[in-house]
Amino acid sequence: MSKKGCLVIISGFSGAGKGTVVRELTTRYDNYALSISATTRAPRQGEENGREYFFKTREEFEELIRQDALYEYAQYVSNFYGTPKAYVQQQLDAGKDVILEIEVQGALNVKAKNPEALLLFVTPPSAQELKRRLIGRGTETLEVINERMARASEEALLMDRYDYLIINDKLEECTETIHQLVQREHLRMSANLDMVEKIKKELEEMKGE
Amino acid sequence: MSKKGCLVIISGFSGAGKGTVVRELTTRYDNYALSISATTRAPRQGEENGREYFFKTREEFEELIRQDALYEYAQYVSNFYGTPKAYVQQQLDAGKDVILEIEVQGALNVKAKNPEALLLFVTPPSAQELKRRLIGRGTETLEVINERMARASEEALLMDRYDYLIINDKLEECTETIHQLVQREHLRMSANLDMVEKIKKELEEMKGE
Repeated sequence: MSKKGCLVIISGFSGAGKGTVVRELTTRYDNYALSISATTRAPRQGEENGREYFFKTREEFEELIRQDALYEYAQYVSNFYGTPKAYVQQQLDAGKDVILEIEVQGALNVKAKNPEALLLFVTPPSAQELKRRLIGRGTETLEVINERMARASEEALLMDRYDYLIINDKLEECTETIHQLVQREHLRMSANLDMVEKIKKELEEMKGE
Repeated sequence: MSKKGCLVIISGFSGAGKGTVVRELTTRYDNYALSISATTRAPRQGEENGREYFFKTREEFEELIRQDALYEYAQYVSNFYGTPKAYVQQQLDAGKDVILEIEVQGALNVKAKNPEALLLFVTPPSAQELKRRLIGRGTETLEVINERMARASEEALLMDRYDYLIINDKLEECTETIHQLVQREHLRMSANLDMVEKIKKELEEMKGE
């Protein structure tokens, strides 16, 4: 079984419960590491550099872009957000399965550069259930809920580019399903070419016996 | 979750324990069906048409080839052996995961025509262990064992074309690993495009609300 970690990209509609599932995965199992984003926005009270975010100046962030040191980046309002490669690679090399919870377009950009990444799309069982969950939160205005539903409609157009579809009906089940998927990923032939080489070599050597 | 079955192709060195694992899978779980080969050889005592094999005359077999009704076929000694598509498709449509236990070249031929097939390569943890198992059977002459080791050496050259590498160290574990891999296959995006369409449609319809 491959000892290098697997890059797991999780996307899904706002309200699908991705955040809860990811928290559950990292709480239950110690093989996961969360990717940490870089941002140019100022740290808020209690936030620590290298924990919530890597806080960067605009110049530092632009330097990361120039060096191709980010898997993907985007601008929201006047701030940049991106995924530094170095931290993810370091965790993968240490054998951690790294979870990247990002939106659809960013996810597809990362996958394009890293075909071995596991692309998971999390959805509630139906659009009706998605709306129910958004309303159930009780924190969003109807306007925001309708915006999110409209955004879901756009994101749905790219769903079929993902590797697996995960239906988040029950948290427990959904968490286990994702965990198993990630564990099985370590059995991929492409992650075990050293084992293949070992066996080929042994078989060659035994020919003389 | 997709209701259509998954085509699972299992190959591996002679002595890797494929047969035992496949028997264990079909005994423990009722979602599996074994593919049944067609052959031109005569039925032996106790063999039944449609159970061990589909017994065919030479003319019937050649007709199957002409109609492209076989996934793959090969000639051993003076008899033909092949995998009829119709039976496999019938089982897949009925929701069964169909196991095809075939040798490497045949497996790659089937995969070329069916990219969605799951290609599993089963191996003992080492070449030494493979030889120990072949000797341990106590039924093979040293000459036959050496022939099998030489054949393993050839098959190993194509191992890396498989989707997953399954190390058969303990039967129980190996069986469960394969079962999990097959179950996860039902979550593949390509197997769930109807669910994607359903959600897209629902989201579109809710836009007016």
